[in-house]
Amino acid sequence: MTNPYELTATEAIELIKNRKLSIYEWVLSCFDKIKQKDSDVKAWIYLDEKNALKKARELDELNDSSLLGIPFGIKDIIDASNIPSGLGTPFYENNIPSRDAGSVSIAKQSGCIFLGKTVSTELGHRGPGQTTNPHNKNFTPGGSSSGSAAAVAAMMAPVCFGTQTTGSVIRPAAYCGIVGYKPTYGDFDKSGILPNSPTIDTLGLMTRSVEDVSLFRSILLEEKIIKPKNIDLKNIKIGFVRTPHWDKTDISTQNNLEKFIEKLRVEKLDITDINLNQIISKADQLHLDISGYEFKRSISYERFNYYNELSDQLRSGRLNDGYQVTNKLYKAAIKKLSILKNEIDEVFKDIDLIITPSAPGEALKGLGYTGSPMFNTTWSLSGNPCVTLPLFKGLQNLPIGCQLVTKFGNDDELLDYSKTIYDNYLK
Amino acid sequence: MTNPYELTATEAIELIKNRKLSIYEWVLSCFDKIKQKDSDVKAWIYLDEKNALKKARELDELNDSSLLGIPFGIKDIIDASNIPSGLGTPFYENNIPSRDAGSVSIAKQSGCIFLGKTVSTELGHRGPGQTTNPHNKNFTPGGSSSGSAAAVAAMMAPVCFGTQTTGSVIRPAAYCGIVGYKPTYGDFDKSGILPNSPTIDTLGLMTRSVEDVSLFRSILLEEKIIKPKNIDLKNIKIGFVRTPHWDKTDISTQNNLEKFIEKLRVEKLDITDINLNQIISKADQLHLDISGYEFKRSISYERFNYYNELSDQLRSGRLNDGYQVTNKLYKAAIKKLSILKNEIDEVFKDIDLIITPSAPGEALKGLGYTGSPMFNTTWSLSGNPCVTLPLFKGLQNLPIGCQLVTKFGNDDELLDYSKTIYDNYLK
Repeated sequence: MTNPYELTATEAIELIKNRKLSIYEWVLSCFDKIKQKDSDVKAWIYLDEKNALKKARELDELNDSSLLGIPFGIKDIIDASNIPSGLGTPFYENNIPSRDAGSVSIAKQSGCIFLGKTVSTELGHRGPGQTTNPHNKNFTPGGSSSGSAAAVAAMMAPVCFGTQTTGSVIRPAAYCGIVGYKPTYGDFDKSGILPNSPTIDTLGLMTRSVEDVSLFRSILLEEKIIKPKNIDLKNIKIGFVRTPHWDKTDISTQNNLEKFIEKLRVEKLDITDINLNQIISKADQLHLDISGYEFKRSISYERFNYYNELSDQLRSGRLNDGYQVTNKLYKAAIKKLSILKNEIDEVFKDIDLIITPSAPGEALKGLGYTGSPMFNTTWSLSGNPCVTLPLFKGLQNLPIGCQLVTKFGNDDELLDYSKTIYDNYLK
Repeated sequence: MTNPYELTATEAIELIKNRKLSIYEWVLSCFDKIKQKDSDVKAWIYLDEKNALKKARELDELNDSSLLGIPFGIKDIIDASNIPSGLGTPFYENNIPSRDAGSVSIAKQSGCIFLGKTVSTELGHRGPGQTTNPHNKNFTPGGSSSGSAAAVAAMMAPVCFGTQTTGSVIRPAAYCGIVGYKPTYGDFDKSGILPNSPTIDTLGLMTRSVEDVSLFRSILLEEKIIKPKNIDLKNIKIGFVRTPHWDKTDISTQNNLEKFIEKLRVEKLDITDINLNQIISKADQLHLDISGYEFKRSISYERFNYYNELSDQLRSGRLNDGYQVTNKLYKAAIKKLSILKNEIDEVFKDIDLIITPSAPGEALKGLGYTGSPMFNTTWSLSGNPCVTLPLFKGLQNLPIGCQLVTKFGNDDELLDYSKTIYDNYLK
């Protein structure tokens, strides 16, 4: 039999329903995997093993199939009641929130089992944590949701929560070779999550299947569970977007994506090259101004009380960006963002699905830099839903993701397209 | 000499600069006033007297005029480091945040002195706290920023922070006869503040002068201090908006406002009656859907863990509204909001300033109901900046406010208009 930790949530739930697996066995198996691998991967900053196993036993005894028992982890900038929230810094050891973040509370209420907290970069920005890439520990897992991506990739949990302000869900998911999902802006609650840039911040999911994204999305929306469907891709219009950053991608990313697109064309899918260079360049600038201005304010307590303990990457990065932006410029950027969103809505009048890189290439060697979010910035800013699928491998035998983007609000369609592509084109 | 507690912040700072007042005397005087009045008013839930006086002494010794020493209070749903955050409920006695809310941290960094936390309604919604109206303790102070409005009106602090999702700054400020200000959406940081409806929530200010609003606005924006100017009102276009709720205002509100508008007309100001009934009716519905949906999620931890301890006003109010809204309906409402904001921008192409009621009338008798926000909903949802000025008195000799609204982003202009009207028309 497959080890329980290898199962996706969707698979495990089916086995539990048929009495072939208990929730306790599933949770125990995740902790076994953590014990086996986490000294190398370092995905977790806090484990709540005793409570998780206790809860699992209770659920097994209750035998209520509406309580799903899915083990999950959360990024360290997300609050869980009575669990230390380090916020990816060394100076919050004693920060123990009284409340669960809204989304954590909703997940727990549906029976999901909190395993612990995963490593975040410093305050959700760039300063890396200790986590390594499960495919090769000399490479970055990406960031800022580093531990969540690595934990899911290393099969320590079927699902983890990440957050994205620039590329912090899609990039680490791509680097770690899993499915990453950033929903339409506003779909998932953010209360109890450290804000970086509230106009842009989104809670996202890391999983090992598209079905699990849909499952957990339904849980967080507190709506009926929707299963993604295989559709006929010939019925949709696809746009291939190289972006103005195409020449910064590595050769495997270019070759793999071009070959994939060519294959889809051979299969007579309706694919057009789309040039969004103007929109993306505008988005890059607006993102810089808005996220800088808002980040500087959100972390006021840290910049005034722990400035010397902050990393240079943070101080000279987004914090410094923030110091360049006046309130007047910020408000002008907010107005421009509203216009940009309309322009992107117009793009999606002619197109159902955009295919574009998830990241500039494979994960980078070394743990000092989590990689560039240049292919994620636009969609973070605009709030369009995105998925990354682990479709390719690079020259270093590390995963390369393929990013799919749909219209604002079309998350269910995005997940149908994602499932279809995953099922038909995963090597 | 005037008692220091009677001074506005702008006045006190001038005296301190000229060595006619020390920060310590000012802060001590506020605490004296609190001791004298708070057994009736019940504005405060937590006082940090020892630290505040210590900080005041330190600032006096530093003698650095860039550190302003302004005493301030904050609503109980706003975090201050190492101070209990009760969130307006009885069940968070032991909730002690490690971080200051961003705006609290910014205020402290500029030398402002934290006095304590003021009474909030339950989780920032309708369930009233113990606070009474300083003008008559048998009447409501309004809510949800009840304690902040009452503390400023009772001269216990020159400035307090409130938050507004529907009418929670403007209404209590109007009921308590002070100046209330809700800035353009997004102008003030909200990290560390319990979200009610993040798409709408705004941090606002309660003061006893328009100058103090400008002063504290500059502090929170970390920009050069701007003083509001008297302008010639003949140079601007004013719209008088009765709203579809006009027939629900009391007779003193109608008479006072109509007489005031008539006076302005006699003085040859450019005033037009504007009918925004369609916009306001749309806004009322969108506000209900968006704030309900988001509130239900934001307080997930409380609805799942403390449902029986929540008030019926909350459970059958906004929480119940939230249960009526699907994710699909919510996202449609978000898209409609973007269109509504454009429609309101159009209105302000022909108008510089809107004058409209702050509330349906004087404060209501009894402490069980904090009053209707019907005149605030539209501007909360749209994010336009608003001020309430204590221009009138009603039949019960309680204050009646006059609400001023400008274009999104025109906060400086709003404060100029507010100062001009305050200086020229306050009875």
